[in-house]
Amino acid sequence: MRIVKVPLGDRSYSIFIGEGLLPRLGAECRRLQLGARCAVVTDETVAPLHAQPVLESLTAAGFEPCSIRVPAGETSKNLRMVERCYDELAGHRLERKSFIVALGGGVVGDLAGFVAATYLRGLPFVQVPTTLLSQVDSSVGGKTGVNLKAGKNLVGAFYQPKLVLCDLGTLRTLPEREFRAGLAEVIKYGVIYDAAFFRRLEREMPKLLQLDPKLLAAVVARCCEIKAEVVGQDETESGLRAILNFGHTVGHAIENTAGYGKYLHGEAVALGMIAAAVLSAAMQGLPDGDAVRLAELLAAAGLPTEIKFTAGQLARMFEAMKLDKKVSAGEIKFVLAERIGKVVWGQKVPTTVIQEALT
Amino acid sequence: MRIVKVPLGDRSYSIFIGEGLLPRLGAECRRLQLGARCAVVTDETVAPLHAQPVLESLTAAGFEPCSIRVPAGETSKNLRMVERCYDELAGHRLERKSFIVALGGGVVGDLAGFVAATYLRGLPFVQVPTTLLSQVDSSVGGKTGVNLKAGKNLVGAFYQPKLVLCDLGTLRTLPEREFRAGLAEVIKYGVIYDAAFFRRLEREMPKLLQLDPKLLAAVVARCCEIKAEVVGQDETESGLRAILNFGHTVGHAIENTAGYGKYLHGEAVALGMIAAAVLSAAMQGLPDGDAVRLAELLAAAGLPTEIKFTAGQLARMFEAMKLDKKVSAGEIKFVLAERIGKVVWGQKVPTTVIQEALT
Repeated sequence: MRIVKVPLGDRSYSIFIGEGLLPRLGAECRRLQLGARCAVVTDETVAPLHAQPVLESLTAAGFEPCSIRVPAGETSKNLRMVERCYDELAGHRLERKSFIVALGGGVVGDLAGFVAATYLRGLPFVQVPTTLLSQVDSSVGGKTGVNLKAGKNLVGAFYQPKLVLCDLGTLRTLPEREFRAGLAEVIKYGVIYDAAFFRRLEREMPKLLQLDPKLLAAVVARCCEIKAEVVGQDETESGLRAILNFGHTVGHAIENTAGYGKYLHGEAVALGMIAAAVLSAAMQGLPDGDAVRLAELLAAAGLPTEIKFTAGQLARMFEAMKLDKKVSAGEIKFVLAERIGKVVWGQKVPTTVIQEALT
Repeated sequence: MRIVKVPLGDRSYSIFIGEGLLPRLGAECRRLQLGARCAVVTDETVAPLHAQPVLESLTAAGFEPCSIRVPAGETSKNLRMVERCYDELAGHRLERKSFIVALGGGVVGDLAGFVAATYLRGLPFVQVPTTLLSQVDSSVGGKTGVNLKAGKNLVGAFYQPKLVLCDLGTLRTLPEREFRAGLAEVIKYGVIYDAAFFRRLEREMPKLLQLDPKLLAAVVARCCEIKAEVVGQDETESGLRAILNFGHTVGHAIENTAGYGKYLHGEAVALGMIAAAVLSAAMQGLPDGDAVRLAELLAAAGLPTEIKFTAGQLARMFEAMKLDKKVSAGEIKFVLAERIGKVVWGQKVPTTVIQEALT
């Protein structure tokens, strides 16, 4: 088992990464001295696969878990579902020392995390991410939230978990498309922070796609380390943390314009990184060779690298980007790459350049 | 003008207390270097009285305020209204450096504060409390939140404002019943922290009820000071801060059982303090004389000191108390007084004693 520490002062926590960790959850929660009652928030897809060992482990450790199941998918990340969770927590008489376990992917983690951040003004929160995307991304850094009609993640809180437990075994139950989508964020870490890691991914992508256990553990741990280093320096995204959004400004707009659910988040981010590479070439002199390597690695991971927009879609994408949380004084700010392994954030890009990049 | 500082590290802020401060709001916000766009959240009662100088002052200082009006009263403190606010903020294109001004009483402050805490994962927040209750209580300490059907304030966040501006002139537009309700919290500060302040209130209650400007300023400032001292030592209510809940466990249960809106919060707290005094006499040896002084001071402030419950109401009150946020390991914990000016918190009280106190 690998352990990655996320250094955030009195909000520090550890990420456990390894095979077959689910049955250890109860014992680890016991070490954190949490209250007896807890709620396991999960979805209809994950529950039949993984809820049993989690609930058994908690019960065996002396906890009293209840289970809250939401429909699978991004459409559950809304305020109605938040309210349903609150009502269930009240019904189960959760108290301030009670805790919430998120068992599932990013949607479950974001939703359950926001519920934990706000029920009784904050309950302890434990993440058990079961997708590659959530293990390398949403389980680190404390961003929680839900969508509004007006945009993705417009409502939320920065709220750190007490513990994250990444059981790599859960990735074997993941549909291949979901696994590949997670690789978009994995590749992103190489682009923004670690050229050597990017090269390793170029060399070992076929092995990674076969879920080689040792490689998978190393890759998940390295992604968590990078994110922990970045978040440790800037918890609430006032500066450096913005680099984690490489590819996300356009990516979110694609998700928003195409309708939630058409593209998986990672697929939209892959397309967003292609767009960001075009902008980076225009504005920061990203070498053509680096842009090609990015497109080739995304393609090797089985991710989309091309998309065609109608004029109407383009107009809606611009509207969506203006609502992005990175907008400041009405201007869209981008994360751009100088080269693979090195990005800059808070970059203004002229509208004409954005339009060219998208067409 | 008096200034009370709330010492919370990088979340410290100042409370300005004085007559005629509303027209200074814009200039003070300018000094905080907030973004241009802002939203003034207020209610249908307060808006016609005070919105104009606030909006004019913000505009004159170069801000672009929009106004969000909610119906007056506790019934607006719900998730539907939170969602309506989110939608309006999205419509007005508020950004991360934009800010939210709460103009009104506790309901507006709690609602707008929760919206500020969660929209875009947190926007700067400025409080302009216009009731005695909100000036002495809810404007200090960063508790924000809304009600669920299952109970009051079950959802929320600890979220500190950047500035609080208490214009004592707004208290002259307050209905007398509301002003008296605010006095319950004022009296509470004497009980929990400051026997000399309690004695001053005993001496000067008639003058206070006439809104004597100098006395009013001194009283509001002293209450804010006490709350700031307490909150400065325990921001998230892991210990000492609980003393601020003196009278609130039963008070909340009365509000909940009687239906929101029948009793004003302060009136329910007055009744809750009477109950807490009975419990304190039984469990902590609070002298009879002190309990009598408390009842007499509440009566002098025109607050209710007696209530009769049916057996059904009593049962519902117990249910409501079990959902209280102070419940730990299934046990209701009380704040009890040893004498006026000195309380202890986290006290278990046998059910039979509680039942006697309520009958």
